[in-house]
Amino acid sequence: MPIYNAPTKDIQFVLHDLLKVSEQDIPGFEDLDRDFTNAVVEEAGKVATEVLHPLNVVGDKEGCVMENGVVRTPTGFKDAFKQMQDGGWTAMDCDPEYGGQGLPYVMHTAAQEPFVSANMAFNMYQGLTHGAYSAIHAHGTDAQKQTYLPKMVTCEWTGTMNLTEPHCGTDLGLMRTKAVPNGDGGYKISGQKIFISAGEHDMADNIIHLVLGKIQGGPEGIKGVSLFIVPKFLVNEDGSLGARNGVTVGKIEDKMGIHGNSTCVMNYDEATGYLLGEEHKGMRAMFTMMNEARLGVGLQGYAQAESAYQNAVAYANDRLQGRAVTGAENPDGPADPLIVHPDIRRNLMDQKSFVEGARAFTFWGAYLIDRAHKNQDADADGLISLMTPVIKGFLTDKGFEYATAAQQVYGGHGYIEEWGMSQYARDARIAMIYEGANGVQALDLVGRKLALDGGKHVMAFFEMIKTFIKENEGKEALSKDFLNPLKAASKDLQAAGMYFMQNATKPNNALSGSYDFMHMMGHVCLGLMWARMAKAAMEALEGGASDTAFYETKIATGRYYMARQLPATAMHLSRINTGGDTVMALDAANF
Amino acid sequence: MPIYNAPTKDIQFVLHDLLKVSEQDIPGFEDLDRDFTNAVVEEAGKVATEVLHPLNVVGDKEGCVMENGVVRTPTGFKDAFKQMQDGGWTAMDCDPEYGGQGLPYVMHTAAQEPFVSANMAFNMYQGLTHGAYSAIHAHGTDAQKQTYLPKMVTCEWTGTMNLTEPHCGTDLGLMRTKAVPNGDGGYKISGQKIFISAGEHDMADNIIHLVLGKIQGGPEGIKGVSLFIVPKFLVNEDGSLGARNGVTVGKIEDKMGIHGNSTCVMNYDEATGYLLGEEHKGMRAMFTMMNEARLGVGLQGYAQAESAYQNAVAYANDRLQGRAVTGAENPDGPADPLIVHPDIRRNLMDQKSFVEGARAFTFWGAYLIDRAHKNQDADADGLISLMTPVIKGFLTDKGFEYATAAQQVYGGHGYIEEWGMSQYARDARIAMIYEGANGVQALDLVGRKLALDGGKHVMAFFEMIKTFIKENEGKEALSKDFLNPLKAASKDLQAAGMYFMQNATKPNNALSGSYDFMHMMGHVCLGLMWARMAKAAMEALEGGASDTAFYETKIATGRYYMARQLPATAMHLSRINTGGDTVMALDAANF
Repeated sequence: MPIYNAPTKDIQFVLHDLLKVSEQDIPGFEDLDRDFTNAVVEEAGKVATEVLHPLNVVGDKEGCVMENGVVRTPTGFKDAFKQMQDGGWTAMDCDPEYGGQGLPYVMHTAAQEPFVSANMAFNMYQGLTHGAYSAIHAHGTDAQKQTYLPKMVTCEWTGTMNLTEPHCGTDLGLMRTKAVPNGDGGYKISGQKIFISAGEHDMADNIIHLVLGKIQGGPEGIKGVSLFIVPKFLVNEDGSLGARNGVTVGKIEDKMGIHGNSTCVMNYDEATGYLLGEEHKGMRAMFTMMNEARLGVGLQGYAQAESAYQNAVAYANDRLQGRAVTGAENPDGPADPLIVHPDIRRNLMDQKSFVEGARAFTFWGAYLIDRAHKNQDADADGLISLMTPVIKGFLTDKGFEYATAAQQVYGGHGYIEEWGMSQYARDARIAMIYEGANGVQALDLVGRKLALDGGKHVMAFFEMIKTFIKENEGKEALSKDFLNPLKAASKDLQAAGMYFMQNATKPNNALSGSYDFMHMMGHVCLGLMWARMAKAAMEALEGGASDTAFYETKIATGRYYMARQLPATAMHLSRINTGGDTVMALDAANF
Repeated sequence: MPIYNAPTKDIQFVLHDLLKVSEQDIPGFEDLDRDFTNAVVEEAGKVATEVLHPLNVVGDKEGCVMENGVVRTPTGFKDAFKQMQDGGWTAMDCDPEYGGQGLPYVMHTAAQEPFVSANMAFNMYQGLTHGAYSAIHAHGTDAQKQTYLPKMVTCEWTGTMNLTEPHCGTDLGLMRTKAVPNGDGGYKISGQKIFISAGEHDMADNIIHLVLGKIQGGPEGIKGVSLFIVPKFLVNEDGSLGARNGVTVGKIEDKMGIHGNSTCVMNYDEATGYLLGEEHKGMRAMFTMMNEARLGVGLQGYAQAESAYQNAVAYANDRLQGRAVTGAENPDGPADPLIVHPDIRRNLMDQKSFVEGARAFTFWGAYLIDRAHKNQDADADGLISLMTPVIKGFLTDKGFEYATAAQQVYGGHGYIEEWGMSQYARDARIAMIYEGANGVQALDLVGRKLALDGGKHVMAFFEMIKTFIKENEGKEALSKDFLNPLKAASKDLQAAGMYFMQNATKPNNALSGSYDFMHMMGHVCLGLMWARMAKAAMEALEGGASDTAFYETKIATGRYYMARQLPATAMHLSRINTGGDTVMALDAANF
């Protein structure tokens, strides 16, 4: 049985030592003192460990089952979902006007991490609801908000996002789902949507589907797509549930992982839908919450790696196999624990230095979202728009890679389902695909975000690194191990950006390097996070912090990342510089 | 339903254009003319595509089932196994004295690839038997050989290898399985073995288990390990089957993949066993066929990537999504096929250039095994010993990586089991673990093989590269795109070797870089293969070969590898040069 313990101290470190949340001039942040955030994270960790984690394997083994159109979630999910509702965990950053607690998004993110680490498939029911909540909150009429939001804040009603159809995923302009005005202001929605997470289940009284479709007679392609609210049960004027709507489950998909989440084919057969936002502006409405949704998926990536890592460490300390090359470290035992072996440590340090850097990067992103929303800070908004594809693409690629690396520590025991390590890898795999496959994230980054507002945000990012280096280069402890590698990596990144600019008229050259650029930028972001965390840890030690081992470990882990991971930027740059010639050389028939 | 077609042309290219098998002075190679090898590979491909491939998904879905101690393989496996026997596919490189066809190992390897690509789990029943056959052939008495080999050559009886126990895998010195002399020259074997592939099933009349155990009163640890033949049914003097032996299946493991293979817990309860080879020399006997077994696992790695790649290409040509950035390429259709997009091509070229390089590397390894065995060539034996951990470790790491990359091309459709792409990733995953986890391969490479025979073999490898470059640097077409990158990568590899030598007294420094070194060496080997293949393709074109597209594609694919994959050596070197300080910095308690 796998273990999971919320890394409360590490989360607190990011919130306070790194981001210094309680000192920020953002409305609501003044309440985020150490005691309060600690209490929240501790409690979230307790729920994660005691309630959600034990159901992770259950969800994987049982999956969701459909009988006569009714979907049954795995044993225990319903009770656990009730506990999440009762604990107010579904409402943390929601609008108090609709029953939310109005906490900053960064705090929501800090609480989400343990939930996702403990049970990713389970947490998606709430996660999708949160996304639908945000869309209605941003684009709904007052009446729509009053009708749906209070119940969605509590997750008494859950939500879904319906984008994909059998023949189109990324290219939504091809979609066929139709909306025909029904004469009373509503629409009749018909079509088939696939891969709908939490599409149907037994944990909520109603399910509010947000469905993209084309209003008959509207513009062709993506410009004719509108967003609709399609409740499973229509809602009466008094808020009570009315007639069953024309939406049914076609089937539950058999997936590689996240078995605990019901991924459904949804059939809409003249279902009653209500326009959300403006006609033909459905994509804009969907994209409103894209930064948050993608940040949430990036979090899934590293949160699965965190869980897998915790187990790998436990196994490496427990399993006796071989002797340390420098002499027995457990001479009275039959062998030394795995953790004495350099290559096991190399593997664990890869995982550890990634997860901790990723956490800092993700929380920083959440902080930028708060700053953008609560302070109407356009620079923060631009910066998080730039970072979003990196958080999503880089953290999910690496999250899967390291969940797999953790599995490797177990040898053959990692491959059998009994130990639970296969599930982390199988679950983490989806995060690279959904919410925009990572290749699409790379395209978004290089094709759109770099040039956004005249390249202002990427320049601001470079400036931020430069300033940080300049302000700290007098500190010897930082300079050699942290600032120099950061400077080199940042230089690589700028050179790649320069290559793209010089090849602006040869888009195949730039786009052949987009994936490498996304990874390169991910490394630079984690490098920046580690340099800042090292500085924060050094300051804590200088300030006489009592837990010296914690801070020293933080610095040593950062040093590992800077020495052994960050230099990957040079490889990515060398690939980018080869352009598109070798990539595009073959005729399609010759693959 | 996934597709699979044997890459006959590519296999022929490696056998003849690259390795020039029929021109080699190795006994038996003179028969390997193009017509013969083509017929064999075509026919193997036909069996793979028509018989084995359709059962791949069946095996994954049904798995093996145990009822009352009897293991049932998936629907169709039994018939297919019979067809493999009848076709003589199990006997290709076996000794004619026992019914084999006596073909070179390189030919066996060429036929194995399609089988493994089509159905890895199925092919393991034969693969394990082949391993057990080799051990008995090398170490058995005449009587043992006469008793077991003829039936194992035909796979009427299958074989297994029993090494792992619940508490020990890599460190076999810890094993507890006991052997007590039974007074008539045999032994009573008692103990539990786990992860026994093909441990029990319904496709053979008898199963010949090779079991490692300790003879009571023998030396402690690994020096007291002996190897035993433990047949499921004892064999009477006349060759007929006798009493059921004391070996039973504890359970079938629930695994991430290779569901079609019955991975068993085997319980030995005073089972009758016969010593194979010498007392206490069991490890030596096991290691005799290690090079072949590990080469076979490396083949599994790239063969799964090959299958996944074929499907990814088909999907990328079929699926319409988005428009080419340089203008519509399918203007009459609703969208362009995925394959127009640079990042999709980048992904496919990564896969293609790896698989083709890996095939060349593996076949070259098989050729070295033939040369070592059939010509008693000690240099070839040393070289393949050096290469074995690289073939196993690098090709399975990359094979899994690219099976996963192929899955990514499908977007959400890659994650659902319906399309079959998840299976390739799940099946390929095991190859990184069994037959010595890849971290152990890296340790073997850096800790043992580099220094083997005074470092003679690695020096010979460097010399081989140097000579090749020198002999060909006059050829402009090779020089810039192939020889220069190879020279740079080889220089990186030598620098890493130098670092290890300089740190001989600080083993943690070397072993912290062992995994990077294994990958670095893998890249250099594939770089060398590509340079040679490019040369061969150029020569074929100069010689007026009619299929110019084939050879030009080969060169273009090689150019991709040299430009975009090979430079990874610099990153690995930079990591190695940081030594063990950051790797070993933490106390075990601080992970």
